[in-house]
Amino acid sequence: MEVVDQRISFVTLAVRDVAAARAFYVDGLGWQPAYDGDDVLMVQVGERVVLSLWDRAAFEAEVGPVAEGPAPVTLAHNVATREDVEAVMSVMTAAGGTRLGGPEEREWGGVTGYVADPDGYRWEVAWNPGPVGQAVLL
Amino acid sequence: MEVVDQRISFVTLAVRDVAAARAFYVDGLGWQPAYDGDDVLMVQVGERVVLSLWDRAAFEAEVGPVAEGPAPVTLAHNVATREDVEAVMSVMTAAGGTRLGGPEEREWGGVTGYVADPDGYRWEVAWNPGPVGQAVLL
Repeated sequence: MEVVDQRISFVTLAVRDVAAARAFYVDGLGWQPAYDGDDVLMVQVGERVVLSLWDRAAFEAEVGPVAEGPAPVTLAHNVATREDVEAVMSVMTAAGGTRLGGPEEREWGGVTGYVADPDGYRWEVAWNPGPVGQAVLL
Repeated sequence: MEVVDQRISFVTLAVRDVAAARAFYVDGLGWQPAYDGDDVLMVQVGERVVLSLWDRAAFEAEVGPVAEGPAPVTLAHNVATREDVEAVMSVMTAAGGTRLGGPEEREWGGVTGYVADPDGYRWEVAWNPGPVGQAVLL
């Protein structure tokens, strides 16, 4: 192997209520679990990337205590057109997400808006016409 | 489009010092930037996934205030053998990361250890012989 390939394999978020995460991601968005357990829900969100929603108590028991309050992280879901931003935000909101702001034009030339999942994790729904934005589209 | 594809496009972390993030990820791990600016560093970490290290003040100006203290998130880097866990942890430590614990056997059958990046974001280096773990390997 190269010693450290340029890869994230899992993004793990500590959640207070795995059932609420399941209601949003699986029932609401229609995402298929890769693993669905009592205290963890895993969803494949890329070719070799898995989103893991892990019960916060179990997370803290292994990883250590975490801060209360808004996490310093956003997950972005990029789309192919500016109109798709509102379409995805609407589905996320109907699925139980909380609309936080936007869609609006950003100074870098795209359009994005924010929706929080049931645990408050912020998704940015983004149309990014620049090269990095295009590189993440299917 | 399917209205909400099962995808994360960007993982954005609010960092106090983009230069320190660059020293770790680019100079230390040898990862190639997809975009390297004054207040944001982007690195492709999957086929259509980008890790974005964004200046915390700029992040908060757009997204809102975030909590102080350990973030409720881990990023995992999975490897093919149990020996690779220590190898990657050593490279991360030599690059300026802080070893937090492990490698150790986990109850689910794998071996993992934790290293913090310069901003305290926790990477889990993992050997996971189960099906979800194998699905994220190249």
